[in-house]
Amino acid sequence: MAQDEFSIIQQYFADVGKQTANTVLSIGDDAAVVQIPQGFQQVVSMDTLICGVHFAADTAPADIAHKALAVNLGDLAAMAATPDWFLLSISLPQVDADWLRQFADGLQHTAQRFAVQLIGGDTCRGELSISIQVAGLVPAGRFVTRAGARPGDLLLVSGLLGNAGLGLAHQQGRIELPDELRLRCLQALHRPQPRLELIEFLRCFASSAIDVSDGLQGDLAHILKASHCGARIDQAALPVTPWIEQHNLYHYALGAGDDYEICCSVPQEYRAEVESWNRQHADCYLTVIGELTDSGFILQVGTRQVDLAAGGGYRHFG
Amino acid sequence: MAQDEFSIIQQYFADVGKQTANTVLSIGDDAAVVQIPQGFQQVVSMDTLICGVHFAADTAPADIAHKALAVNLGDLAAMAATPDWFLLSISLPQVDADWLRQFADGLQHTAQRFAVQLIGGDTCRGELSISIQVAGLVPAGRFVTRAGARPGDLLLVSGLLGNAGLGLAHQQGRIELPDELRLRCLQALHRPQPRLELIEFLRCFASSAIDVSDGLQGDLAHILKASHCGARIDQAALPVTPWIEQHNLYHYALGAGDDYEICCSVPQEYRAEVESWNRQHADCYLTVIGELTDSGFILQVGTRQVDLAAGGGYRHFG
Repeated sequence: MAQDEFSIIQQYFADVGKQTANTVLSIGDDAAVVQIPQGFQQVVSMDTLICGVHFAADTAPADIAHKALAVNLGDLAAMAATPDWFLLSISLPQVDADWLRQFADGLQHTAQRFAVQLIGGDTCRGELSISIQVAGLVPAGRFVTRAGARPGDLLLVSGLLGNAGLGLAHQQGRIELPDELRLRCLQALHRPQPRLELIEFLRCFASSAIDVSDGLQGDLAHILKASHCGARIDQAALPVTPWIEQHNLYHYALGAGDDYEICCSVPQEYRAEVESWNRQHADCYLTVIGELTDSGFILQVGTRQVDLAAGGGYRHFG
Repeated sequence: MAQDEFSIIQQYFADVGKQTANTVLSIGDDAAVVQIPQGFQQVVSMDTLICGVHFAADTAPADIAHKALAVNLGDLAAMAATPDWFLLSISLPQVDADWLRQFADGLQHTAQRFAVQLIGGDTCRGELSISIQVAGLVPAGRFVTRAGARPGDLLLVSGLLGNAGLGLAHQQGRIELPDELRLRCLQALHRPQPRLELIEFLRCFASSAIDVSDGLQGDLAHILKASHCGARIDQAALPVTPWIEQHNLYHYALGAGDDYEICCSVPQEYRAEVESWNRQHADCYLTVIGELTDSGFILQVGTRQVDLAAGGGYRHFG
């Protein structure tokens, strides 16, 4: 099947996502044109997923599409920005109509669900990889960075940590998970859910936030560095599936990547707001895992203190 | 050398380009934050260059960096948008400090020259490829698309067509160019110059415009399709180096890609403005190559008429 770049974009990607009111000109020209409503700022991010690095070659095309978009939306959520539109650059080893249809359908599903519009991009021949650039909106000055945490602030994490890492380890044959847990962990690995429901909470209450993409230890270290403070976290408080606790495999919660949960700090005075959030959002529970301190990075394991300051977390170049 | 994503970005890319007044938060967080001045719209585009497809493996790193940014800036120029900032996602087979330094220096040089700021991105391990997403600004409603050409409009092309194609053919051993021309053609191939100087002209006078990246024939066909009209162009009028004329190798001007010149249409009433432009811009000469018609796509070769409507131009998936 011979097909050129133009017809691939037109055939598969011309109508992906929920149309945003801010798009002036979408797919089909040298570039797209957008506007930003008055009083808002734009938040932008770009992430690339590469076959063999970020996903296995036999991953379902719809899962690849979902994840490529979801990890980018996770970056916006961590900044407290509401997703608006995205650009897609995809390189393909060959034009496989069936693969492309499944990929485009998966992208459509995720883009509709999170109300973002695909407004442009690029296709070319090469090793399978997907770059997505997302743009979101935030009322001017209301974005949340890694830099605002203060000693005494509560440290929170959304959802569960470590399930995506367990899923990957299972997929690679390094561990054997029980059936029901396996399904949930593979779901966490292939279908991470960007925590867009937290955006308003973060704008109102968070002093800092980060997307947990490379493992809690490494990502929290970014908050500590940017905010010039330390942290003490309690291993027993980490939100993990009981299996991790039973087998004492907390390194999956601390060091494995791909969870795409939000780690944030909240001043103590908002503790009641955290509890109120949790009463209303059982599916996006915020767990207090510790607090910010003046310096150091300590993991409390029972009565023992482990120094996490030496670093860790998943690294792309090891 | 072991180096992680964070330190690569910090070490090589933290300070690339000319700082724009619209950047609120640059490299170093989950995402960057920008604003758009009131009365302006944003124009966005993303293009990927892949080693072995868009450039040879032994291309100088600074040339790769230049071209990856320049082709994106060319898209903005064709829309009449002034470049503002960009995001970079680079995947590398390994961390080679010397290569990265040359690449970052080349990117710095080009970004400074065209006054754009690198505000974020991503690095990962994989086949060498570079995705860049650019954003530019245009006064609201003043952008130029492929869709506004009208029968009777003049068809213009900036600079020379075919030199990049000659350079590639020489590099691949398919032709042998004389010394001085070879240098100019390799320069055209590796160092395409985005025609940002045309932005104001396009805003004022162009009814349509496109970036000539895939060959004049194919790219002009996009204008004709989007504008629902035809064109007649005159081979003898095509702006080519004398060598192409002497050897009757006009297919390099018509079908070879990578020139990154601007093809635009201008209503006849602005002919004097075109001439005025050309008196003042010898280095960005606009050549009248034909005119828009009601239908069809004709190349006049002496007294013969060649039908170009059947298609052509470089395709990524052949």
